[in-house]
Amino acid sequence: MIPITSSQNPKFKAALRLESSRGRKKQGRILINGIQEIQRALDAGVAIEEMFVCEGMAEDKVFGNLITSATEQGVQVYSLPKELLQKLEYGERSIGLVAIAKRPTTTLETLGNLDDGFVVVLEGTEKPGNVGAVARSADGAGARALLLADPCTDFFHPNAIRASVGTVFSLPLASGTSIEIVNWLQSHGFTTYSAIVDAQQDLWETKFPARTAIVLGNESEGLSEVWRTRLMVGVSLPMLGAADSLNVSTTAAIMAYEIARQRQNA
Amino acid sequence: MIPITSSQNPKFKAALRLESSRGRKKQGRILINGIQEIQRALDAGVAIEEMFVCEGMAEDKVFGNLITSATEQGVQVYSLPKELLQKLEYGERSIGLVAIAKRPTTTLETLGNLDDGFVVVLEGTEKPGNVGAVARSADGAGARALLLADPCTDFFHPNAIRASVGTVFSLPLASGTSIEIVNWLQSHGFTTYSAIVDAQQDLWETKFPARTAIVLGNESEGLSEVWRTRLMVGVSLPMLGAADSLNVSTTAAIMAYEIARQRQNA
Repeated sequence: MIPITSSQNPKFKAALRLESSRGRKKQGRILINGIQEIQRALDAGVAIEEMFVCEGMAEDKVFGNLITSATEQGVQVYSLPKELLQKLEYGERSIGLVAIAKRPTTTLETLGNLDDGFVVVLEGTEKPGNVGAVARSADGAGARALLLADPCTDFFHPNAIRASVGTVFSLPLASGTSIEIVNWLQSHGFTTYSAIVDAQQDLWETKFPARTAIVLGNESEGLSEVWRTRLMVGVSLPMLGAADSLNVSTTAAIMAYEIARQRQNA
Repeated sequence: MIPITSSQNPKFKAALRLESSRGRKKQGRILINGIQEIQRALDAGVAIEEMFVCEGMAEDKVFGNLITSATEQGVQVYSLPKELLQKLEYGERSIGLVAIAKRPTTTLETLGNLDDGFVVVLEGTEKPGNVGAVARSADGAGARALLLADPCTDFFHPNAIRASVGTVFSLPLASGTSIEIVNWLQSHGFTTYSAIVDAQQDLWETKFPARTAIVLGNESEGLSEVWRTRLMVGVSLPMLGAADSLNVSTTAAIMAYEIARQRQNA
């Protein structure tokens, strides 16, 4: 373990830059904070390059296990004073351990064969917390991939990683322009469903086929025009109270779990 | 419309104090920010006492309608310079209109007859955003009430109101100690269901009876002991991916919509 004592240390400075989307893009690396999140990244074979641990905390049992498995994989571990480490941690929660990894590839080409799985697509999502929350629900419901169309945020924003509890590492991911994703879905035989207020067909009447994609629009603008194809089906979610819609991540979860229910009962 | 020009104005100072839980308790009043939120409060008959509008914005059509209906109900409207009004608004979003209302009653006694509806219970919830998100989903799924047991937050925290898109005003609400709520549910003939990892019975196998309560525990601690009664049934949510649970508000939404589905198909 190599000690880092100064905020001018180049390794530390490079890590700090990964908090911004620009820094992640430039370095092709990401910052992972959280025990579960780091564990899932390791389990998924994400290429972890460095770990930063709070001085005196490497002896903690959970940390020790993570650090040992990382070291075995050739990861360099640095120890830092608490005040430096906290600068690398996201939000208010401080756990004392941060990992730096190579950014996983998220292109449509590397998605591979999804068989007859269903996939979830988010278009123009702005809030990284929503991307992470949808990843967590998609993972739970057995989706085969999460796709971001024309994204305004990143799968690997610290808040997306956290809200996903690390499922962004296990779930196959791809991002692209909306047109690329529409074309990919069509050429791979997917039928696309979206929650549309007042659509004639309701969620529970819909029989989702083997290759199903569900697509959710931006928090404020909804879906763009490119989705209005003959392979796009609008379904309404029953709204039995005062409000006329659910939020994006809840809509995704309810649709994904309805698909899972139909598959279990098929 | 009465102009307010100074941050020392007593009406303004009293309103500002409603941003804190302590201030809301002391005054028995709440602060409502957002067009939809104010509209739903008016529709639900919440007693609005004052409105604060940004100078020059009262002519806006949507605002104008809200202000007119409020004035007809005897609400006093104040106009403020933008920099004062923004202090009363929650978060980054500024819309230019804030309403002050009498805090709605949220006791078990005032819940009234819920017939054979289902209710959602949150125990020890810490994040107001979760309370609001669950209110929105419960409203959508046709729940008859939302109950808070041993709450660590408030139905009328500005973030709860916002995440609920105002459904906290239309949905019957009650809060109490966990024991009070368990007793109330039992004496009213409700069977209580909770999502438990590894419960033998899964969500889709469960046939929810006419009087159903679903209860969700605290974000980190889960449910307290008082729920372990013979009238409490654990159900597992199918988890088909890498993670072993969903977040509180997603769990509530999936359970509530499964109940709604069964009722529609009954």
